[in-house]
Amino acid sequence: MDNATYDLVVIGSGPAGQKGAIAAAKLGKKVAVIDRKGMIGGVSLHTGTIPSKTMREAILYMTGFRQRAFYGCDYALKERIGKEDLTARVRIVQERELEVVKHQFRRNEVTVIQGSARFLDPHTISVTTESGAVSLTAEKVLVACGTRPARNSMIPFDGQTVIDSGEMEQLSHIPKELIVVGAGVIGIEYASMYAALDIRVTVIEQRPEMLDFVDREIVEQLQYHLRNLDVILRFGEKVLSVEKDPDGTVVAVLDSGKTVTGDALLYAVGRQTNADLLNLDAAGVAIDERGKISVNEHFQTAIPHIYAAGDVIGFPALAATSMEQGRLAASHMFGGISNYSAFPLPYGIYTIPEISMIGKTERQLTEGKIPYEVGVAKYDELARGQILGDQTGKLKLLFDPRNLKLLGLHIIGEGATELIHIGQAVLNTGATIEYFRDTVFNYPTLAEAYKVAALNGLNKLRN
Amino acid sequence: MDNATYDLVVIGSGPAGQKGAIAAAKLGKKVAVIDRKGMIGGVSLHTGTIPSKTMREAILYMTGFRQRAFYGCDYALKERIGKEDLTARVRIVQERELEVVKHQFRRNEVTVIQGSARFLDPHTISVTTESGAVSLTAEKVLVACGTRPARNSMIPFDGQTVIDSGEMEQLSHIPKELIVVGAGVIGIEYASMYAALDIRVTVIEQRPEMLDFVDREIVEQLQYHLRNLDVILRFGEKVLSVEKDPDGTVVAVLDSGKTVTGDALLYAVGRQTNADLLNLDAAGVAIDERGKISVNEHFQTAIPHIYAAGDVIGFPALAATSMEQGRLAASHMFGGISNYSAFPLPYGIYTIPEISMIGKTERQLTEGKIPYEVGVAKYDELARGQILGDQTGKLKLLFDPRNLKLLGLHIIGEGATELIHIGQAVLNTGATIEYFRDTVFNYPTLAEAYKVAALNGLNKLRN
Repeated sequence: MDNATYDLVVIGSGPAGQKGAIAAAKLGKKVAVIDRKGMIGGVSLHTGTIPSKTMREAILYMTGFRQRAFYGCDYALKERIGKEDLTARVRIVQERELEVVKHQFRRNEVTVIQGSARFLDPHTISVTTESGAVSLTAEKVLVACGTRPARNSMIPFDGQTVIDSGEMEQLSHIPKELIVVGAGVIGIEYASMYAALDIRVTVIEQRPEMLDFVDREIVEQLQYHLRNLDVILRFGEKVLSVEKDPDGTVVAVLDSGKTVTGDALLYAVGRQTNADLLNLDAAGVAIDERGKISVNEHFQTAIPHIYAAGDVIGFPALAATSMEQGRLAASHMFGGISNYSAFPLPYGIYTIPEISMIGKTERQLTEGKIPYEVGVAKYDELARGQILGDQTGKLKLLFDPRNLKLLGLHIIGEGATELIHIGQAVLNTGATIEYFRDTVFNYPTLAEAYKVAALNGLNKLRN
Repeated sequence: MDNATYDLVVIGSGPAGQKGAIAAAKLGKKVAVIDRKGMIGGVSLHTGTIPSKTMREAILYMTGFRQRAFYGCDYALKERIGKEDLTARVRIVQERELEVVKHQFRRNEVTVIQGSARFLDPHTISVTTESGAVSLTAEKVLVACGTRPARNSMIPFDGQTVIDSGEMEQLSHIPKELIVVGAGVIGIEYASMYAALDIRVTVIEQRPEMLDFVDREIVEQLQYHLRNLDVILRFGEKVLSVEKDPDGTVVAVLDSGKTVTGDALLYAVGRQTNADLLNLDAAGVAIDERGKISVNEHFQTAIPHIYAAGDVIGFPALAATSMEQGRLAASHMFGGISNYSAFPLPYGIYTIPEISMIGKTERQLTEGKIPYEVGVAKYDELARGQILGDQTGKLKLLFDPRNLKLLGLHIIGEGATELIHIGQAVLNTGATIEYFRDTVFNYPTLAEAYKVAALNGLNKLRN
């Protein structure tokens, strides 16, 4: 394994690294992937997407959350849910998913090297493994090293009751009162999950509003549902300090003079990349103060044979987009089919209820002086919404009243992250919202919301 | 209300009648809908789609069926599930859905008349209501009278243990051993639900195979899963007689000499329409021996101002297609936008696991001498499939290897009836399966199956 030469060396085996490595291998290239021991699959598999989405599903099931329309608000399947109930299922899924990732590497003959990578020069990477250092020569490099939660020296992290989002599994117990600092995607996903568990959650966010890339009406609806679950939202509030009392109480002191108490605190303000660990100076690649790497539209850094993809290049930092970036980078390197498209990307947010969107928000259209009309469907108008007991869901189409083209699509409620892809196909193929009016949808489905929303929007034009 | 004149009289308030009436009302027409007392919403709402799909959801939840991947095969949330557990939820949904239907009629100023309709002549319909007979004059008529289960004089129906599919709610208890005669959509949906409840189910079907319009691989997979739930499938077997023993045992005697015993029997062999109750002779409209009415592509009967839509015109007799037929009929009558399309219709079958399809099956393509290639994704390759614990799902794309156009799409597993609509959009807009390869799907979702299947199919071409 020492001093081997590769067509492509990938640093990081998360979604971007995986898909980049496999795309290159399918083009017949010799590929190595480097990741630290126990980190194959990246944070997505170990502390991020997979555990949080699995825990979400376990919580939805064990709390009987989806069944409350039928059995009342106090209904809970398992009266006392313990930490083990949530984590057992997570471990099963993680193990299976790890097998899938490893199997894909094996099947595509991608070499996996466990250790820490450092650039020695633009084409040479040294890896510190358990059995010593090895040196790899690479024609091309894909930096997909991912991120870690940003730390703040004022926060007395202890890995047990004051934690960052990478430590959710280490939480010593299920808290009774949780303080969440930061209302970004990660913070608000966990806030909604714990609220569904009937835990008192207080969210503190420095900015005046949350999730600013999401349509305001959808965010308002999410906030409404969070408040119904007794979540306290404190926006425009800055945390000055966090103290731990000997009795286990955690106290956050706010700039406004308020104090918020709980028995656990999740600090979810920002993430920083792992690029600072790679000695990128030796390769001539610069990083910014949060460790982000700048790339062009082909995912090339300033050094053309060194590419970067995934969370290390910043927004949106979602597993789905990272995979696509990895694939496109590999295609560009080796002249495969480059199918980079200018189509808008879907976003999925796994709050309770879940949110998904594609295209423009009302605010963006207004700011861009693009006229639009709105078509709305509420899930409780749909037979399937009633069967599932989802009384909160809503699908909103934004379309151009002049040519009926879809401009944006916003969904909150059960299945949002799946359903968005129906509208995405219509958006990307350039069809009008008449498509939804003229299409037969299975009955009963949530997909019918498209038809209801299109009819709603078209009726507004008629009047 | 007596002797009123209407632009449109609709006979039947199920999916076809509802959507036809509302489409005409939206065009400014004066519309009346006639249905028998207690039957607003049609069999779809009262004994068909809505109760069966709601019961299915209740069974999936209460048996913890979806959770067995995590908690083992013997896992059941509610150890002893009683009939009341299943029907309580059904009634809640029925009441809400009935309100939705009534509200739609009210909002669109559609007159609802409760009673039994009979033609007096092609433009005159008499309705026997609780407060006497009224006579309606109609410029146009839409016959959407629906169907009832076909009866067989050899079967000793008692509405309690030997029942037809309209009597599922009257079943006196949850049986321990259920015999299902007829493996059509209705028979097999109920068979799979009861099997999920851990009831021993035997299905008897006269034909050598079931669901012949569905792709064979998908049916085989369904049969495999049914057998895993200990369902006994007896195809090519004819029921000669059914006897009830005094101890409550029901015995079906087969032509082959076998006997099948149980403590309840569901007879689900065919349906016949209610057209025989309408005195259609007086209108000059003929019906066949099962009561079906023939219509042209505009849903007109032999008498041009009398239209028919929904189950009364035969296959596919699904709520979704019936709605579309009702809408198209009303559009044609009054010169609204007629958006009849030649696009294939989706089919949804709410078995456990559920099935959905659109376009051609492998058998149809082979018979039509149309070359095709197959792209497959198994749910257990998907992170979302693992999170949900669906180890049985599969998505199959059939496409033309020459131009990569989608020819057919077949899904079995969680969410199949929703997911089909992503592929439908691609099929209907004429895009190729490269669309799936080049599209970013939220992660983790089941929708990713499209990408996995497309890559699988495209890789086969390369080799």
